Amino acid sequence: MTGRLTGIAASPGIALAKAFRLNKEHYEPVAEEVADKDQEILRFSKAVEDTKLELEEIKALTEQRMGAAKAEIFEAHLMLLEDPDYIDAIIESIQDESMNAEYKLHEVASSFIEVLSAMDNELLRERAADVRDVTGRIMSKLRGISYAAISAINEPCILIADDLTPSDTAQLNLDYVLGFVTEVGSRTSHSAIMARSLEVPAVVGAGEGAQDIVTGTMLILDAVEGVVLVAPSEQEVETYQKSKASYDERRAQLRKLIHEPTISSDGHRVELAANIGSVEDLQKVLANGAEGIGLFRTEFLYMGRSALPSEEEQFQIYKHVLERMNNKPVVIRTLDIGGDKELPYMKLPIESNPFLGLRAVRLCLSQEDLFRTQLRALLRASSYGQLKIMFPMIAVMDELLAAKQLLQEEKEKLMQEGIPVSADIEVGIMIEVPAAAIAADYLAKEADFFSIGTNDLIQYTMAADRMNENVSYLYQPCHPSILRLIQMVIQAASKEGKWVGMCGEMAGDEHAIPILLGMGLHEFSMSASSILPARALIKKTSQNEWAGYTQQILAMGSQTQIKQFVEQKTRSDLA
Amino acid sequence: MTGRLTGIAASPGIALAKAFRLNKEHYEPVAEEVADKDQEILRFSKAVEDTKLELEEIKALTEQRMGAAKAEIFEAHLMLLEDPDYIDAIIESIQDESMNAEYKLHEVASSFIEVLSAMDNELLRERAADVRDVTGRIMSKLRGISYAAISAINEPCILIADDLTPSDTAQLNLDYVLGFVTEVGSRTSHSAIMARSLEVPAVVGAGEGAQDIVTGTMLILDAVEGVVLVAPSEQEVETYQKSKASYDERRAQLRKLIHEPTISSDGHRVELAANIGSVEDLQKVLANGAEGIGLFRTEFLYMGRSALPSEEEQFQIYKHVLERMNNKPVVIRTLDIGGDKELPYMKLPIESNPFLGLRAVRLCLSQEDLFRTQLRALLRASSYGQLKIMFPMIAVMDELLAAKQLLQEEKEKLMQEGIPVSADIEVGIMIEVPAAAIAADYLAKEADFFSIGTNDLIQYTMAADRMNENVSYLYQPCHPSILRLIQMVIQAASKEGKWVGMCGEMAGDEHAIPILLGMGLHEFSMSASSILPARALIKKTSQNEWAGYTQQILAMGSQTQIKQFVEQKTRSDLA
Repeated sequence: MTGRLTGIAASPGIALAKAFRLNKEHYEPVAEEVADKDQEILRFSKAVEDTKLELEEIKALTEQRMGAAKAEIFEAHLMLLEDPDYIDAIIESIQDESMNAEYKLHEVASSFIEVLSAMDNELLRERAADVRDVTGRIMSKLRGISYAAISAINEPCILIADDLTPSDTAQLNLDYVLGFVTEVGSRTSHSAIMARSLEVPAVVGAGEGAQDIVTGTMLILDAVEGVVLVAPSEQEVETYQKSKASYDERRAQLRKLIHEPTISSDGHRVELAANIGSVEDLQKVLANGAEGIGLFRTEFLYMGRSALPSEEEQFQIYKHVLERMNNKPVVIRTLDIGGDKELPYMKLPIESNPFLGLRAVRLCLSQEDLFRTQLRALLRASSYGQLKIMFPMIAVMDELLAAKQLLQEEKEKLMQEGIPVSADIEVGIMIEVPAAAIAADYLAKEADFFSIGTNDLIQYTMAADRMNENVSYLYQPCHPSILRLIQMVIQAASKEGKWVGMCGEMAGDEHAIPILLGMGLHEFSMSASSILPARALIKKTSQNEWAGYTQQILAMGSQTQIKQFVEQKTRSDLA
Repeated sequence: MTGRLTGIAASPGIALAKAFRLNKEHYEPVAEEVADKDQEILRFSKAVEDTKLELEEIKALTEQRMGAAKAEIFEAHLMLLEDPDYIDAIIESIQDESMNAEYKLHEVASSFIEVLSAMDNELLRERAADVRDVTGRIMSKLRGISYAAISAINEPCILIADDLTPSDTAQLNLDYVLGFVTEVGSRTSHSAIMARSLEVPAVVGAGEGAQDIVTGTMLILDAVEGVVLVAPSEQEVETYQKSKASYDERRAQLRKLIHEPTISSDGHRVELAANIGSVEDLQKVLANGAEGIGLFRTEFLYMGRSALPSEEEQFQIYKHVLERMNNKPVVIRTLDIGGDKELPYMKLPIESNPFLGLRAVRLCLSQEDLFRTQLRALLRASSYGQLKIMFPMIAVMDELLAAKQLLQEEKEKLMQEGIPVSADIEVGIMIEVPAAAIAADYLAKEADFFSIGTNDLIQYTMAADRMNENVSYLYQPCHPSILRLIQMVIQAASKEGKWVGMCGEMAGDEHAIPILLGMGLHEFSMSASSILPARALIKKTSQNEWAGYTQQILAMGSQTQIKQFVEQKTRSDLA
C-alpha cells in the first residue's frame, strides 16, 4: 500500500526507514495425516528444543543489554516450554491422532490463547501474548523459516505491530529500531509510555490501515504530528529529511540545557523531576538533566515474581536510587497495587471495577504487614539521600492519618533498634482522587507535600477509564474542571506553606505547562524525555504573566478554548 | 442459634415473626447405579414436567399480583426447562451411565452454575441464580419434598437469604413476608433498593452468622438500628412489641402528611418527589404523597427482553406515567445502560471498568438510532402531562449540546408530521460526574435544571465502587468534598435562575436533609417510603437557620464531625 495513516503522536520524533512487521504473518497450517507419528513427535520436540536454545540466547542478550528485570519475560517463555497443558498436550495430540505437528501446535495454542484472552485477569490476558510469541517461534522452527521477532532485527527499521507487549519492548534494540507504529493504543497505553521512556518516536492507535504495511516498505514516521507516510514520494522523503534534521538540531539545542536550572523568563524557579518505574530508568533520568525524582513507582518490585519482596531487597533498591541521585530529592510512592495491577501470589479480590476498588493505600492499610515491610525499607534507606515518602490514592483524612501512624510506629521501632533514620523525611500524598483535591485544605495540614496524579485525577473527575478507547474523548487535561481542581490544590497547599508537584502526563504537556507555572506549581515530574523540552519552554515563559491569565483561563468553558488561548499567547511570546 | 446479628439497616421498620430460610438446604445427592435407566429417565422427566406446571402456576399468580414485568423472570425459568445444555444433558448422562437422576441433576447443574458464575457478564452471572432456582425445584420434585421457595410462604415470616435475586423479589407476597435479612449486600444493592421500594423492613449484609438461622426460629428484626435478635427472650419480645407499636404510631402520624405541601418551619417551600424504576412503582408513589417524579429510570424498558423496545411501546408507558401523575412534574431520564447493566441483544463492549466506560448518554450518543427512538417517544408523550427530560452521565458541555441537538431534530420532525409536542418541556441533566459538578456554571447556561445523582457522584468523587464492600467506608455522603460539590452546583444553577434537585439516596438521608435545605436545594427525590419522614423533618427545620450554618459545615474536616453537628442542632431544634 501507499498512503498516509494518522494516529496518536505518543512519543515525539521523526524517522525514515523500512517497515518491519512484527509477528503478523497469519499462517494457518492445514491438517495432514502423518505416516510415522513418532518421527513427527521427534520433529516437534526438536523444534521445541531449538526454541529453548534461542530463547536462552535472547534472554542472556537482553539481560546484558537492558538489565535483569527486562530479561525476566523470557524466563516466563522458557517456563511455557515446560508447561504440560501446552507442550505435552500437543505431543499427546499428535500421538493420538497421527496429525502433523504444525496443525496440532496451531490447534492447541489457539484454544489456549482463546481461553487466556477471555480472562478477566489482565496478567492472564498478557500471558496469551506470551503463548502467541512462543508458538510463533516453535512454528518457525518447524517450518524452517526465521521468526519475525524483534530480536531478529538487524538493520534500521520502523516497527509495525498490533500493539507491543512488555515482552516485545524488553527486546527493542534501539540501534536498529528507529521508531514504531501500533494499530491500537492511546497516549497512556503501555507501548506509548515505553516509547517516551525509551525516547523512540512512536505513533500509536494508527488503526487497521497499519495491517496492510508489509515488511520492507519505505516509511516516514512523523511522531510530532502523528502521521505515517507509506511508500512516500521522493519529494516527501526530501521534505522529511529536512524536518528530521531541524528536529534533531532542536534536540541538540535542548541537550545544552541539561545542567541548567529551570527558571522562568521572569526569574521564578521550579523543579523539573522525572518519573521512574525501575532502577533501569535512572540513567536516562540523569542524562536528561532531572533535578530529582518526582515519582518512583515501586510496583515493579512486586510484579512478575512468586512472592513478596523482602525488606532487605527493597532497602537495597531504595538505597541504590537515593545514592545514584546524589542527594537530589527522590519521591518514592508506596505500593500502588490492586486495581488493574494484580499479583497472583496475593490473591486479591476480583473486582467489577478495579480502578474504583481496593488498590494502593486502601490495600496497604488492609494488609498492614505488607505495608509495614515497605515502610521499614524506606525508613532504613532514608539516611542515604533526600527521601520523600508519598502515599497514593488518599481520598479522606483518616487514610492519611492511619498511614502516617504506621510510618511513625516503624520509625520508632527502628530507632529503638539503633538503625539510623533521617530526621527530615517529608511525607506527602498523591492527589488523584477528586475528593482529595476538593478537600485539599484539610489534607494540607497533615501532608508535607502534594503531588497531583493527573492520569487518575482526570479519569475519576471525568468518570472515564483512561484505558478505554470508547471514552477517550473525555480525557481532557485542560478541561476547566481539571484546571479548577488543580488550582484548588495549589492554593490549599500554599496556605499551609506546603509545596505541590505534578507527576501525571499533564506535567509535560506544552499546553498545560504555562498554565501550571502561572498557577504556582512548584515541581513538574515527567518522563525523562520530556524534561528538556519542558525546561526550554519554561525558560521563555513568564510566571507573572501567566499568573495574570489564571482567572481568565478558569472562566473559559472548554478545553478547546483554553488550548487555543495558550497557543495564541505562546505564539505571541515568541513573536 | 440464639443471639444477635448486626448489619446494615437498609429499609426501616420493626418486625417480629418466625424465620423462613430461602433455598438454603445444601442437599448433596450420592451417586447410585440404577437398574432400570429408562424408568429413571421417566422419573426425571416427570419431575421436570411437574416443575413446569408449578412454574406456570407461579407465573400466572405473580402476573396477577405484581404485574407482567415481574412475572417475566418465570418465563426465563420455563425456558431453562427446554434448554438442551441442561435438561437433555442430564437425560443423556443418565442414559450413558445408568446413574440416579438426583446425582446427575446435581452434577450437570453444578458445572453449569460454575461456568455461569465465573462469567464477566452480570446478566449471565444472574442466570446462575436461575439455574440454581430451577434445579432446586426439580430436585424437590424428585425427592417428593416441598421446595423452600418464596412462593411457598403462606404464613407471616421474616425471610433469610444469602441475597435476594430479582426472581426472588418478584415473588414476595407482602401479606406474609414481614421483613428480610440477607447475608451480603450494601445500602445500594438490589435487595436494599427493593426493600425500600416495597417498604419492607430489611437488614442486609448481616454476615455469615445469618446462615445458622433455621426456618421456624423466632426473630426480631430491628431495621431501624440494623439488628436481628435470634430466639429472643420474652422480655425482648415485649420490649420490641412496644417499639414496634410506637414505630407504627409514628408511621400513622406521617400518613397524615400525605396531602400537605412541603414547607419548612420558616415558610420555605420545596418539592418532595419520588424515584421510580417501573410503572408498578406508581401506586406507592401516590400513596406516599409525592409531589412529582424526580427520577423515572427507563432501563426496565430495555432489560429482560430480546430486542429493543419500539417507539410506540415506550410512548405508551411514558404517556401512562404522565397521565397517572396528573400534571405533576415527571422527570424522565433517558437510557442509562452500559456500565454494569448489559443488554445481551446489543453486544456492548466488555469493559475492564464498566462504571468508567461507555454508558448512559455516552452510549446513546454513539448509537443515535437507539437514542432518537427514545427521544421521539418522550416528545410524543409530552402533551399528556408535565414532562421534563433528563440526560444522565453528562461530563462535558459537548455531550449536552449533542444530545439537545438530536432532541431538537426529532422535535422538528414530529412537528412537521403534525404530531403534537408540548411547548414547554424542560431539558436537564444529571450531575453525577465530578467534572460536571465542578463546571456546573457553564452547563447551567444550557440545561433547564440539574438533578444531583449522589450515588454516582460520591462513587466517582471518592473513586470507590459503591457496590464494592472493600471500599464501602469511602461512601460518605456528608464528606466535606461531596457537600462542597453540591454547594457549587446549587450556586451555579441559582446564578442562571435554574432549579436543582437531587435524586440519589442522599436526598432522603436525615443527616443530609437540613444541610441541603440550607444550601437551597429545590427538589428532593427519593424512594417513595422516605417521602413522609422527609416531609416531617423539613416541616420542623428552618431553612434560614440552616442556610446560616452552611459555611460553618463546609469548613469541617470530616463526615463524622458534620453528622455530629447535624445531630446536635436537630436535637436542640426539638428541645
